[in-house]
Amino acid sequence: MLVLGIDIGGTDVKYAAVDKNGNVSNFSKFGFKKDADKLISLIYEKTKRFNFSKIGVAIAGDVDSTKGIVRFSPNLNWKNLNIKKKLSDVFGKPSNIENDANAAAYGSYVLDFKKKYGNIVCITIGTGVGGGLIIDGKLYRGSTGSAGELGHQTYMPQGRNCPCGNLGCFERYLGAPGIIKTAEEKIKKIKTKTNMLSTDKNFNTPEMITMAAKNGDKLAIEIWDDVGKILGTLLSNAINSLNPDAIVLAGGISKAGDFLLKPAVKEMKERAFKYPSSRTKIIISGHQEHLGVAGAAMLSMNK
Amino acid sequence: MLVLGIDIGGTDVKYAAVDKNGNVSNFSKFGFKKDADKLISLIYEKTKRFNFSKIGVAIAGDVDSTKGIVRFSPNLNWKNLNIKKKLSDVFGKPSNIENDANAAAYGSYVLDFKKKYGNIVCITIGTGVGGGLIIDGKLYRGSTGSAGELGHQTYMPQGRNCPCGNLGCFERYLGAPGIIKTAEEKIKKIKTKTNMLSTDKNFNTPEMITMAAKNGDKLAIEIWDDVGKILGTLLSNAINSLNPDAIVLAGGISKAGDFLLKPAVKEMKERAFKYPSSRTKIIISGHQEHLGVAGAAMLSMNK
Repeated sequence: MLVLGIDIGGTDVKYAAVDKNGNVSNFSKFGFKKDADKLISLIYEKTKRFNFSKIGVAIAGDVDSTKGIVRFSPNLNWKNLNIKKKLSDVFGKPSNIENDANAAAYGSYVLDFKKKYGNIVCITIGTGVGGGLIIDGKLYRGSTGSAGELGHQTYMPQGRNCPCGNLGCFERYLGAPGIIKTAEEKIKKIKTKTNMLSTDKNFNTPEMITMAAKNGDKLAIEIWDDVGKILGTLLSNAINSLNPDAIVLAGGISKAGDFLLKPAVKEMKERAFKYPSSRTKIIISGHQEHLGVAGAAMLSMNK
Repeated sequence: MLVLGIDIGGTDVKYAAVDKNGNVSNFSKFGFKKDADKLISLIYEKTKRFNFSKIGVAIAGDVDSTKGIVRFSPNLNWKNLNIKKKLSDVFGKPSNIENDANAAAYGSYVLDFKKKYGNIVCITIGTGVGGGLIIDGKLYRGSTGSAGELGHQTYMPQGRNCPCGNLGCFERYLGAPGIIKTAEEKIKKIKTKTNMLSTDKNFNTPEMITMAAKNGDKLAIEIWDDVGKILGTLLSNAINSLNPDAIVLAGGISKAGDFLLKPAVKEMKERAFKYPSSRTKIIISGHQEHLGVAGAAMLSMNK
């Protein structure tokens, strides 16, 4: 049985055919305008030659998975949109809708861990910081479908303003805009401009910090150290509260690799309970872009 | 079927007979020295007239529930103690051992909520701050049995030293010693001694703050406001990460009632996601001292 997996992000749509083991084929990705009807027609055209029986969709936003409704997606500007019905109208096939970080968590459970571990925390770090929880081998959605928003836990009680309404959310320090803000604050404080970032007038992405770090730039390494420590605090919170078998990091920021992971794990070990933390595997996903489509498809398959 | 429920805390032991609906009878409580063998013999003497088929034990500490071993209890000074075997030797009956906050969470699931809600977060606030998670109507123990340690999440990244090794754990601000420390810091700053706490030389318990607050003492009310805000931050973290149906507060500090609960809920509403937080019931347990024995017994019954 093949299932069509679709992952609708803020700027890109990804889709693929997914088999019962989570294997992804015909993966494709394209930019799109935020019109749901046009998007669904377009995906229909691109995938009608696939032989699939069901559809699984991952969407960045607050999703009512039972009803198949996008309650609110700030990035897509969709509100109370019955995406399940729209898909049924065009494809004539059953579908299941999930939050994208939840789908990624399930995708990682299948692809990174081959279902070997039952309790997994997935943290997706890109522009925003999302999360998904696998508990006893099942996606845990919570009471209203919004469980796993680990990035909107408080890091600094009187810290940076978050669009969610809170102050000092982890997302404000770990998401791409937060990392750039931290970098800019650090650059301002430096008097002698002997580093790559403060002399580069076009500096504005975390990837550029990673590039500078790879070239041995001390300030860039220091920035990832600082960000890593904050991530380590989030990891220790996750371990002490959820005691998972594994934590998987995914999303653009996780591609900083060891520059981010090493200080994060060090800080986590200093903060978390020793016994459970010594038994938690912490990895960066090896399947990144496939997690959403694979997870969305597998969750639809299981319904 | 009756089960003997035993709740071994740092200073008191509680026990009772518990029926299949969690109803507690013959509840009793006594102080004890920390010798496990003597304690078990004593409980045997006190309960041998009860007609029960199993035993359920709740213990303050890190417990391996599968093996029935207390890995470590700092308060009891027990280490790698096979309590299940000791109980079997004396009682000749099967038993199940749980962490006390986990047992309390299950007790609240049965007694406070009559199993009506599947996803419950229990926060026990006394000397320490523990927690237990009920997920889909089952106790969630995590990978090594230490899930639910919500009090050892970081509140202030560079805050007060915690014996667990971390800095700034919620427990350092919400547990009884932390509240007293906050109160003392506030009292020091005050110049005019027009309040009850700073004029009472014997002031040293949270109960005395509650008493002063009930008598309209402004400083005492302010202390509970401050503590409540910190609790509200913990509540918002729990809602955004776990999206539970309900959060229940138990333990000595929760007896401050509305002095604590009102500022906590206000702060939680300001910090947490609006939709899930508006749907989370937040209560102080109505069954306090019975939670541990009832939960431990029910968990043993279900095994």
